[in-house]
Amino acid sequence: MRIALDGMGGDQAPAVVVEGALEALNQVPEVELVLVGRPEALEPHLSRLAAPPGRIRVHPATQVAGMEDAPSHVLRHLRDCSIRVCFDLHKAGEVDAVVSAGNSGATMAVGMVVMGRLPEVDRPALASVFPGLMGPTVVVDVGANVDCSASMLLQFGYMGAVYAEQVLGIARPTVGLLSIGEEDVKGNAVVKHAHEFFKTSALNFIGNVEGRDLFAGDARVVVCDGFVGNVCLKLAEGMFNALKRVVKERIGQTLAGRLGTLLLRAPLRDVSTTLDYENYGGAPLLGINGVAFICHGASSPRAIGSAVRLAAESVRGRS
Amino acid sequence: MRIALDGMGGDQAPAVVVEGALEALNQVPEVELVLVGRPEALEPHLSRLAAPPGRIRVHPATQVAGMEDAPSHVLRHLRDCSIRVCFDLHKAGEVDAVVSAGNSGATMAVGMVVMGRLPEVDRPALASVFPGLMGPTVVVDVGANVDCSASMLLQFGYMGAVYAEQVLGIARPTVGLLSIGEEDVKGNAVVKHAHEFFKTSALNFIGNVEGRDLFAGDARVVVCDGFVGNVCLKLAEGMFNALKRVVKERIGQTLAGRLGTLLLRAPLRDVSTTLDYENYGGAPLLGINGVAFICHGASSPRAIGSAVRLAAESVRGRS
Repeated sequence: MRIALDGMGGDQAPAVVVEGALEALNQVPEVELVLVGRPEALEPHLSRLAAPPGRIRVHPATQVAGMEDAPSHVLRHLRDCSIRVCFDLHKAGEVDAVVSAGNSGATMAVGMVVMGRLPEVDRPALASVFPGLMGPTVVVDVGANVDCSASMLLQFGYMGAVYAEQVLGIARPTVGLLSIGEEDVKGNAVVKHAHEFFKTSALNFIGNVEGRDLFAGDARVVVCDGFVGNVCLKLAEGMFNALKRVVKERIGQTLAGRLGTLLLRAPLRDVSTTLDYENYGGAPLLGINGVAFICHGASSPRAIGSAVRLAAESVRGRS
Repeated sequence: MRIALDGMGGDQAPAVVVEGALEALNQVPEVELVLVGRPEALEPHLSRLAAPPGRIRVHPATQVAGMEDAPSHVLRHLRDCSIRVCFDLHKAGEVDAVVSAGNSGATMAVGMVVMGRLPEVDRPALASVFPGLMGPTVVVDVGANVDCSASMLLQFGYMGAVYAEQVLGIARPTVGLLSIGEEDVKGNAVVKHAHEFFKTSALNFIGNVEGRDLFAGDARVVVCDGFVGNVCLKLAEGMFNALKRVVKERIGQTLAGRLGTLLLRAPLRDVSTTLDYENYGGAPLLGINGVAFICHGASSPRAIGSAVRLAAESVRGRS
């Protein structure tokens, strides 16, 4: 299995991406990586980190899409940028998936244009796997489409269910529609309309779910528009980081606190691992005719490694 | 200062509400409570808990609005229900504020109709105070209006800023517009339109903010539509409860865990108090010509006590 990794994408590219590549080689033994970008920028990091030469190689791309470049600009004027070359390799069948921590709007646009959409998909969507107490929950859309129609939401439901089934291995996953109350009549205009579509769909629809159900609910797939989903994703990340910071600050202040922390190190690390977004680092772009994972621009090497692992699982799930 | 408390509102009314009333009398020394509802349901609990007779009295209301009753039904047909009588007392000047854990849609509707709106307010909104790391953050709207126009969002900004200034004592509070990126052009159609209004307003507008900024951001007031705000509120509550549960389960399993927990009891309680929603238990209904706090139906006595405390602070802020 070969995966193209955008070597130039991310707030601290290429250093962090190359570190993430090595993390991925450790996490996923069967994968080979194609690191796309400027060889003169990438190769020093590969040497510095003593990358195993057989499993990772550099593929050149002369341009780089900036984090603020408009997707239309990237599509029209940066035809040899690293993210574009990643998808060109995927389209040509030279790699099985693409992972990028670069400009996410541009990555989505280039992915859709180069790979094309799956049949019956109007608009591809970005999913994110929330670490729930009852198991992972696929939330879709988390940012690809901000203004959505009811029929778009229904398509997101199908795409999320396919992902949950094929990649996460959840048979006939339960699907919920994110709203502000469980009753059918609750929601904004689009959600109320979508509720009618879901009720008569072939999905295993369990009705409306609420914000709290993203962590402890019965739905394995939660559908919302990309504005709401993106706000939720960043809220959850922000809250997790805020909690970690507060606990650390308060507990570090006393001797008892420091001793207690030592005793609790293993279970706290365990909780942190269960709920840490970095272990779910990467959002699959669903509905395109290929496999692509988009990482946060601030991704750590571990998050990039996780995204490559998820991409590999997706490739296996599709075959 | 006198506050009317809806004795019949909440999932476990009247028992929990009466316990909350006593909690409130302890927390707020200068307040007198008027407990509204069926005397035969309320008085046994008051006797059982040995309520101090001088500071709490029962005011009769013969009807009760169910948690699922439509607001229009409550307005038309339940003119002697506890929540209606609370607002009638407020309108007549016999109390300074209303607190209810009952049917929130009905409470909002009755509050608006009985009290009337403030000048220049088209639609009252529900606010919630998020416990941020940098201090409290007022989020508005969290559920009163699900489909909003750009000008409604601007009004929410003004109402939130007035609340932050008068009740929380924050001079010239910073205001942010909840979106999916900090750049001006990010957002859905309504948010992008609203951004233009905010930029030319008299508010201390700092631009778009993201989900993570609800906990650690620079904005003391965050504006969003009631659908997004309600999802965020329930997501944050759900995540906090999920984290507490996971930490408890994992840590209770080992001897070191139990010993460490003993050592960390004080700081962990401290963190929990800072971030626990029960200490912020109650959402002010902004834009009406009066003071009203709406509590979650599942509110604990402590949450109801906090709502009475916040209502008292609002009354002081207005005078």
